[in-house]
Amino acid sequence: MSDTKPTALVISAHSADFVWRCGGAIALHAAKGYNVSVVCLSYGERGESAKLWKNDGCTLEHVKTERKREAENAARALGVHDIEFMDLGDYPLEVGRDAKFKLVDTIRKVQPKFMLSHSFVDNYNTDHSLATRVAIECRMIAQAWGHNPGEKVLGAPQLYLFEPHQTEQMEWKPDLFLDITDVWDKKWAAIQCMEGQEHLWHYYENVAENRANHFRRNSGGQAGGRAAKYAEGFQSVYPRTVDEL
Amino acid sequence: MSDTKPTALVISAHSADFVWRCGGAIALHAAKGYNVSVVCLSYGERGESAKLWKNDGCTLEHVKTERKREAENAARALGVHDIEFMDLGDYPLEVGRDAKFKLVDTIRKVQPKFMLSHSFVDNYNTDHSLATRVAIECRMIAQAWGHNPGEKVLGAPQLYLFEPHQTEQMEWKPDLFLDITDVWDKKWAAIQCMEGQEHLWHYYENVAENRANHFRRNSGGQAGGRAAKYAEGFQSVYPRTVDEL
Amino acid sequence: MSDTKPTALVISAHSADFVWRCGGAIALHAAKGYNVSVVCLSYGERGESAKLWKNDGCTLEHVKTERKREAENAARALGVHDIEFMDLGDYPLEVGRDAKFKLVDTIRKVQPKFMLSHSFVDNYNTDHSLATRVAIECRMIAQAWGHNPGEKVLGAPQLYLFEPHQTEQMEWKPDLFLDITDVWDKKWAAIQCMEGQEHLWHYYENVAENRANHFRRNSGGQAGGRAAKYAEGFQSVYPRTVDEL
Amino acid sequence: MSDTKPTALVISAHSADFVWRCGGAIALHAAKGYNVSVVCLSYGERGESAKLWKNDGCTLEHVKTERKREAENAARALGVHDIEFMDLGDYPLEVGRDAKFKLVDTIRKVQPKFMLSHSFVDNYNTDHSLATRVAIECRMIAQAWGHNPGEKVLGAPQLYLFEPHQTEQMEWKPDLFLDITDVWDKKWAAIQCMEGQEHLWHYYENVAENRANHFRRNSGGQAGGRAAKYAEGFQSVYPRTVDEL
Amino acid sequence: MSDTKPTALVISAHSADFVWRCGGAIALHAAKGYNVSVVCLSYGERGESAKLWKNDGCTLEHVKTERKREAENAARALGVHDIEFMDLGDYPLEVGRDAKFKLVDTIRKVQPKFMLSHSFVDNYNTDHSLATRVAIECRMIAQAWGHNPGEKVLGAPQLYLFEPHQTEQMEWKPDLFLDITDVWDKKWAAIQCMEGQEHLWHYYENVAENRANHFRRNSGGQAGGRAAKYAEGFQSVYPRTVDEL
Amino acid sequence: MSDTKPTALVISAHSADFVWRCGGAIALHAAKGYNVSVVCLSYGERGESAKLWKNDGCTLEHVKTERKREAENAARALGVHDIEFMDLGDYPLEVGRDAKFKLVDTIRKVQPKFMLSHSFVDNYNTDHSLATRVAIECRMIAQAWGHNPGEKVLGAPQLYLFEPHQTEQMEWKPDLFLDITDVWDKKWAAIQCMEGQEHLWHYYENVAENRANHFRRNSGGQAGGRAAKYAEGFQSVYPRTVDEL
Repeated sequence: MSDTKPTALVISAHSADFVWRCGGAIALHAAKGYNVSVVCLSYGERGESAKLWKNDGCTLEHVKTERKREAENAARALGVHDIEFMDLGDYPLEVGRDAKFKLVDTIRKVQPKFMLSHSFVDNYNTDHSLATRVAIECRMIAQAWGHNPGEKVLGAPQLYLFEPHQTEQMEWKPDLFLDITDVWDKKWAAIQCMEGQEHLWHYYENVAENRANHFRRNSGGQAGGRAAKYAEGFQSVYPRTVDEL
Repeated sequence: MSDTKPTALVISAHSADFVWRCGGAIALHAAKGYNVSVVCLSYGERGESAKLWKNDGCTLEHVKTERKREAENAARALGVHDIEFMDLGDYPLEVGRDAKFKLVDTIRKVQPKFMLSHSFVDNYNTDHSLATRVAIECRMIAQAWGHNPGEKVLGAPQLYLFEPHQTEQMEWKPDLFLDITDVWDKKWAAIQCMEGQEHLWHYYENVAENRANHFRRNSGGQAGGRAAKYAEGFQSVYPRTVDEL
Repeated sequence: MSDTKPTALVISAHSADFVWRCGGAIALHAAKGYNVSVVCLSYGERGESAKLWKNDGCTLEHVKTERKREAENAARALGVHDIEFMDLGDYPLEVGRDAKFKLVDTIRKVQPKFMLSHSFVDNYNTDHSLATRVAIECRMIAQAWGHNPGEKVLGAPQLYLFEPHQTEQMEWKPDLFLDITDVWDKKWAAIQCMEGQEHLWHYYENVAENRANHFRRNSGGQAGGRAAKYAEGFQSVYPRTVDEL
Repeated sequence: MSDTKPTALVISAHSADFVWRCGGAIALHAAKGYNVSVVCLSYGERGESAKLWKNDGCTLEHVKTERKREAENAARALGVHDIEFMDLGDYPLEVGRDAKFKLVDTIRKVQPKFMLSHSFVDNYNTDHSLATRVAIECRMIAQAWGHNPGEKVLGAPQLYLFEPHQTEQMEWKPDLFLDITDVWDKKWAAIQCMEGQEHLWHYYENVAENRANHFRRNSGGQAGGRAAKYAEGFQSVYPRTVDEL
Repeated sequence: MSDTKPTALVISAHSADFVWRCGGAIALHAAKGYNVSVVCLSYGERGESAKLWKNDGCTLEHVKTERKREAENAARALGVHDIEFMDLGDYPLEVGRDAKFKLVDTIRKVQPKFMLSHSFVDNYNTDHSLATRVAIECRMIAQAWGHNPGEKVLGAPQLYLFEPHQTEQMEWKPDLFLDITDVWDKKWAAIQCMEGQEHLWHYYENVAENRANHFRRNSGGQAGGRAAKYAEGFQSVYPRTVDEL
Repeated sequence: MSDTKPTALVISAHSADFVWRCGGAIALHAAKGYNVSVVCLSYGERGESAKLWKNDGCTLEHVKTERKREAENAARALGVHDIEFMDLGDYPLEVGRDAKFKLVDTIRKVQPKFMLSHSFVDNYNTDHSLATRVAIECRMIAQAWGHNPGEKVLGAPQLYLFEPHQTEQMEWKPDLFLDITDVWDKKWAAIQCMEGQEHLWHYYENVAENRANHFRRNSGGQAGGRAAKYAEGFQSVYPRTVDEL
């Protein structure tokens, strides 16, 4: 890993979440010279692979293999620097002490300028909200001078919550929109790697188009907002520190 | 007014609010080359001038004159480009249709890159929350192509809510901290212009110091946050539109 | 009005609200030696008098007369010190500048140790939430040294929000329960003065019994809570200032 | 107006809102035999007609005429029973006592089984949230037995809040999704009547497609949810009363 | 279990909760031909049986036996199809992986048209809020095609949160009221089976009467609402999918 | 422990929290004759001792010893009756079944008139919010007649949430302010015992001064509020039960 490149870290409950929810942010920052790392806590093998399970004789290992392949393809399309599969199980995801400490190791190794994870609330999918709680807890542990003393401790990276499905039910409120027009082709390519969830491709194309409308409206609307065609929304967990408003 | 300088606009319910709550932001942006305009909807002559009213024979005109003088002195200390007194009355502040349209004129004239006003809620002081509602309504009118057709319509400037007194009671939650260390001397000088409210000087010095602690904590803490000594906090009303997280 | 007695002030949108919602508090404090004043902003003549309007030939004046009589009877039963009818109209209640200043006069005259009014939200009855906004605004005006200089300004009395109908829809959350067992007979007598709304008598008897259950549960439950039989709940708007937790 | 048909009433701040936000609900209920009435409080002539105002020599009357024509065309396409233009002005919309009472007349005349209006919050467009407050206030007045005694008072119709632009910023949370697949062609035709706002056509097509995804997910998903292709979401203000869960 | 009858599933933290909080819904749906199943996660043997523990020589087994007997009697009175006691312990309730999977088995076996459990928040009784979190998590697992492949996966049943004690403290807001007048005698009989908690009988009678007032008010009030005498309130977790508003 | 003295119990996630956040309340109640007990769930040895860890050769045991010494000194300065160190580890704090039951033993032994712990939310420090959840859960267990039958069960003590760092981010809203002017010298002495966190001394001096401003403002302001110089704020979890408003 280069010492000099800025870095970002995505913590994804299942192996496809990072594609739909922040694939544009990944590709954009990769294009800007960031090393973007992705950690998939599980493959989503039990709960997010209905299409595969409908085939006779399907096994857990087969699903994991397929999901891993899809995720690796998508990561390649987005320019992900590094993708790690923790294989912690899904529906329900369970993250014990050892897994947390392993994730802390990754956070410290990456030293992300910012982190990305799920919404706080998800009453459809408790794996998602658990991933966020774990991200917050592990960020805290990574900041502790007494955890593996001698290692470089973590600073205070922002944690952005990417867009959940059915945003309003998840009490998710974006406070920034990112213009991903220039990398939309990469996100679209990555989306198409998700062969098992083809029913979601067009849905997230619509999301990207409509978030671009929100981008335009908030950057000046008909009085001169930028002509973004695709965008992604994010909710910040922590306040920003700035030199200019 | 220079065509080329960036601009900002503060909408202050009473003539002292802009000093305590965003004096640092004003001085900092003035120093950066912004033209910062301030609109005082009232002088706070009835409700925020207890010290003067305790003197025998005090009149409304006398209080207004004193409050205006203090506010002009403070504005000068902060490098305010322009200060306007709308004299709409206080306790209660009342803002009718004509006053709104006059404020829209100012907004369009200034074409602010960002605006500043009060918190959404204030159960101690309904003038404050009214000022914010008016700011939001007039921002909307200023964006209307059919309002005074031919004038330059407003884009989509951010509206920052500055820090109220007793923040938690006002349901105000800052999402950014601004380092005002370099202009603290100017804010402190402006604060001291508020002769009638000397009991608040030290209070807002404490606020600035403690917000700097929050700045440091959120910019990296003991792992390398910047050594800000004075800061101000703000809550954004609208989402941001960005090219990089 | 006695100089030495503590005082309380109820601001009631319609002339019956004070009975159902805080009749116990009124009777209890009257019994403790308070002078409790009640201001009825309207009679509830149009919207809360269905039973009367179902009679042929009913007129607005007739309804007002009946409602006033009922309210005066109830006030007498509760030991109200003074009841004022502002007759501002209902459905919708409208409170202009003059009416506000008249209410400020009353507040300053009473100098209440605490005030009582409606919940913040009421999507069934906007008169109720308006009454609360007016109470907060007039409390603020009464505190202004520049309003009618020379008069005694108001301190910082607590504003308690009494129990609305369908509490959960009104986002009302009580933070204290008052034991009204000793004065229940008075509240029950006052309730029975509300001849036009007999359908609510038993409802509010149930409320009082169940709030007593909440009183017992929060004062120690089966481990020794007091055997309150009737109680009322209130939500405080402002923080308390204390010498002991 | 037929005595026997069920009815619904839409209260729209500007003359195009009812198309984007509940055009499907209107067409669907019209097809089911409802008489659906629409009240446009204003034409949106100043604030929602940028395209027209960009033409030289444009006048307020011209814009109103165009907006009215578009709205009438859209209403026809949707099967609206009756459309009323109150012409109260926009940016800002202002609704006085007389206008409220006129709206109450309409509500009582229609006796709607349900009503439709805007979200509670809209910090981009205060006309929208005002329309909702007015809808709630007028619903209350229409229920008052003492308002125009002798008229048939209103029962307790549900008020549905239709989908605002940028839902998350408006704190709008849908609690039901309506399948509008069968009438999508009508909604799409009505949308295309909005010639001045062509930039929004595709946006609301995306919304309808994605809300259908939400419909499917909440009606059983891959385990058998109905194959809705287009849907609309609504937030209920009042609780429902039912005989079966 | 009949293939053709509709089904419902109640998940109750302690063995008496289903009686007070949704006994009417159970009896009503049983009467309508539903098979209603109840799962009691614990007996409430340690924390909800004070009366028994006040007797000398009382043992845990004795309390469980008594609580089970009471619950079975109540279930019989309500027409419960099946009651299951998971005996997971109370104060605190603990639900491990095995217990969750066992509950998933039950959910899949029952294939409920709707589910019932506790409020999201309960700072008096953390067993209650845990039961709800578990209900949501197990609903999700039951929907996973990869969990016990070959079994029939769960659709998307609504989860209704039944009424907690001290509703306002629990941030519970009902969005529907169910008329249980026709089965009140059954609920009252079931309540009387709870011999150890006689102090709550009258409390929940009051609740049922007052919720009927809310039913009437929301179904038309004095303008023609149905004369329900007893009702229960529920909060829905998920949006509804409908064909008509 | 004296039978006759009133008691209070502080549950502190790390060994310094009780000093900054409620040292004044402890000293004040000790001075009033309370026996105040403190339970430190951990020493904060890993995450809150950066200064020590920056020294070469620092060990976990050394940090714990130092932290314990500082906490004991502070406790002595405040007049704490008893301080218990549970040594459960920090960053992350983990509280298992045995630890909970041990804490229940302490709660029952102390029989506190009130309890003190952290805010509900802390996205910077999940140990804090865990401590509060544990405090609520153990309070519940201590109330259970079936837990260690024969022991004296707990009544219903208030749980006050003391002031977190960055209050607004923690969604903490104080509902009472306690005047600690008379014991400020003791709190200041205790603060100075925290040698490892000298960067926070002045911060919490500012907090105490500004909370005194809030005390004054809420006890009457310029119209006669008490001249408190130092105060602490608290948020109550449960409603109060009173005899007088």
